[in-house]
Amino acid sequence: MRINGKAMRTIRPAADGRSVEIIDQTKLPHELRIASLRGLNDAAVAIKTMQVRGAPLIGVTAAYGLALALLDDASDQALRHAAAHLIKQRPTAVNLRWAIEEVTRVLQPLPVEQRTNAAWEHAARMADDDVEVCQSIGAHGVPLLAEIAKRKPPGTPVNVLTHCNAGWLACVDWGTATSPIYQAHDAEIPVHVWVDETRPRNQGAALTAYELGSHGVPHTIIADNAGGHLMQRGQVDIVIVGTDRVAHNGDVANKIGTYLKALAAHDTGVPFYVALPGSTIDWRCDDGASIEIEERSADEVLKMVGRDENGAVVTVEIAAPGSPAANPAFDVTPARLVTGLITERGVTDASRAGLDRLYPEHGAQS
Amino acid sequence: MRINGKAMRTIRPAADGRSVEIIDQTKLPHELRIASLRGLNDAAVAIKTMQVRGAPLIGVTAAYGLALALLDDASDQALRHAAAHLIKQRPTAVNLRWAIEEVTRVLQPLPVEQRTNAAWEHAARMADDDVEVCQSIGAHGVPLLAEIAKRKPPGTPVNVLTHCNAGWLACVDWGTATSPIYQAHDAEIPVHVWVDETRPRNQGAALTAYELGSHGVPHTIIADNAGGHLMQRGQVDIVIVGTDRVAHNGDVANKIGTYLKALAAHDTGVPFYVALPGSTIDWRCDDGASIEIEERSADEVLKMVGRDENGAVVTVEIAAPGSPAANPAFDVTPARLVTGLITERGVTDASRAGLDRLYPEHGAQS
Repeated sequence: MRINGKAMRTIRPAADGRSVEIIDQTKLPHELRIASLRGLNDAAVAIKTMQVRGAPLIGVTAAYGLALALLDDASDQALRHAAAHLIKQRPTAVNLRWAIEEVTRVLQPLPVEQRTNAAWEHAARMADDDVEVCQSIGAHGVPLLAEIAKRKPPGTPVNVLTHCNAGWLACVDWGTATSPIYQAHDAEIPVHVWVDETRPRNQGAALTAYELGSHGVPHTIIADNAGGHLMQRGQVDIVIVGTDRVAHNGDVANKIGTYLKALAAHDTGVPFYVALPGSTIDWRCDDGASIEIEERSADEVLKMVGRDENGAVVTVEIAAPGSPAANPAFDVTPARLVTGLITERGVTDASRAGLDRLYPEHGAQS
Repeated sequence: MRINGKAMRTIRPAADGRSVEIIDQTKLPHELRIASLRGLNDAAVAIKTMQVRGAPLIGVTAAYGLALALLDDASDQALRHAAAHLIKQRPTAVNLRWAIEEVTRVLQPLPVEQRTNAAWEHAARMADDDVEVCQSIGAHGVPLLAEIAKRKPPGTPVNVLTHCNAGWLACVDWGTATSPIYQAHDAEIPVHVWVDETRPRNQGAALTAYELGSHGVPHTIIADNAGGHLMQRGQVDIVIVGTDRVAHNGDVANKIGTYLKALAAHDTGVPFYVALPGSTIDWRCDDGASIEIEERSADEVLKMVGRDENGAVVTVEIAAPGSPAANPAFDVTPARLVTGLITERGVTDASRAGLDRLYPEHGAQS
C-alpha cells in the first residue's frame, strides 16, 4: 500500500543479494526507518523484538532468515540450527513454524550447493504468494462490507472495528483484516475504521492508524476499553480482526483483548469476522485450549514510547513506581463467538466442518 | 489509608478556615502533591480536570466547593450560581448532583448569615459520612473474599480483578471496590489484585497500583485487554469494581471498559460485583440506556504522561501523527451481568427489587 504516495512492501531482498530490507516497525509511527537484515541473527532479532510482526510477515521474514543463514553454510546441520533458532523467537505465531517447515521441506532434498539460491527464490515466492493471498482475502471480504453499505443511508460509512494490526504492515502488502477495508475504500464504498489502540504495544494507534492514514482511509483511534460501548450504541457495523493461529475447531488466537471484543460483538449482535490466510490454521491443534500464550516483558505495560514536545522519541514510565505487571500477549476467542472466517478461498463458519470444506487437503489429514 | 506509613485522606479543610486541601491526583503516581482550593472556581477546575475524581470524592469536593463559594456571597443567587456551575463539570457522576442538591436543601431555608458556617459543617459531615459508608461497604464485602479463600488451598491468595480506581483516592478514605480488599488484607486473608491499567487515563496503573502498593497489598498491573484471558485461565476469583451511577434497575455506569470485563466474567463464571454507596444510585433513572456518557478530550487517548529517564514528568504523543481519536469515558454494564451490589447496607442483587429492599425510603418514592 502507499506511504507518502509511494507503494511499499514491508520486506524485500536488497540489491546486494546478501541482505534483506524491512520497515523497522518498532520505530513507527514516529519514524519510517528501513533496517537491513544481514544474517540469521538479524532475522531472529527482528522477529523477537517485533521490528517485523504479524503472523504472515513473521513467516516471510523467517524464510528470508533461513536464506540469510545458508549464505554462509548450507549444510544439513546449519539448516537445522537456523530453523530451530528462528522457530523459538515467537511461540504463538503458527506461520513462523509453517514457513520454516515449508522452506526446510523444499531445501532438504537438494544438493548443498543448490540450497542457497533455492532458499532465496522460495522466500521471494512466499512473499509474492502472501500478497496474492491477502488480495484474495480482501476480495472475499468486500461483499460483507458492500452488503452493510447497501442497508445504510447513502454516504453513511460502514463502521468497521479492528484490533491490533492485521494490516499490510503485518503482511507483505494489503493485510488480512484490512484487505477488505482497503479494497472497499478503493472501490468507493464509504468505510470508517474504529482502531483499537491495542495496549500494551499500541499496534493499533501506532501501526493500523498509520497505515490507514497513509492510504487515506477515514479512521478514529479508541482506547481498547471503548469498543463494547460503541457496539452497544450501534456505532459499529462489523468487527474484522486478524489472527496468529486458528485451531481446527475454529478457535482463534489473536492479540490479547480480542476475546473481549468478540464477547461484546456477540452480546450486541454485531458480526465478528476473522481474516486469515490458510497458513494460519494449525491443523494439529484441535482447539484453542492447547495454544501456548506468549508472556512478554512487563516493561511493555509499564513503559510507553512517544514523541516529546521537541519531536524526540522517548520512553517514559507510566505506572506507579515499584508495581509489577503481567503481559500475556494473546488470548483465545472461542469459535462460538466468531461469525465467520474470511480466507483466501472464501468465507466460512469457524468450525471443523467449515475449515475442512475450504481446505480438504488438510482437513483429510487430521 | 497509608502513604509512606502516614494515614491520609484525599480532602480536608485547611487550617486557615478559608481553603481546602486535596491530593492533586493528576500528579500521581509520579509525585504526591497537595493542592489548595481557594474558591468556587478552584473546586470546579479540580473536578473538571480530575485533580479529584471518583464519584464519592467528586461529591464531597462539590460540597466544599459550595462552602468556598459562600465565603464571599451567601445569597440565594450566589448559591444557585455555584450549584449550577459545579454540577456541569462532570455529567455522568450522579454523586455530584446528589451532593449539591443535598447541601442546597440544607442551606436554602437558613438565614443568609448562617449559611456559610452550615455549608462548611455539612461538607465536613459529608466527608466523615463517606468514610463511614466506605468502611461499611468493606465490612459487607469481606465475607465474599473470605468465602473464596476458604475454598482455596491455604496461603493461596484470592485473586481480585478491579478496573479503574474505585479506591480510597476516589473517596475520602477506604474506597468502595478496594474497601473489602483493604479490610481482607488487614484481617490477613491473602489477597492479590489484578489492576486494570484503565486507558486512556491510566487510573489503574497510576492510582490503584499506587494506593495498593503504598498500603502493602500484593497486586499486578495488566493491560485492559488481559482480564478476559486471565478469567478464561482461572486466574481471577472475583471482579469488584466501583460505579459512577447505578440505575434503579441495577444497570451500572462505570469507567469505559467495565462492560467488557463483566461480559468476560459472565462468560467464564467469575462473580462480578459492584461496590457503591447508596448515594450513587440514581432513583430517577429507570435503566442505563438513558445515562449520559461523557465524551472527553481526544488528547487523553493520543498522549501519555510519564517519567522520563531523568525522572522528569513529561507528556508524549503515542499515536500516528494526524490520526483522530474518540474518548467516551464510561459505559453501561447491564444488570444481567452483575452478580451483586455491595453497599453500605449489605449485598443485594442488581435489580429494582434488590435496591428497593435495601433502600425502602427511596424505592417507595419512584
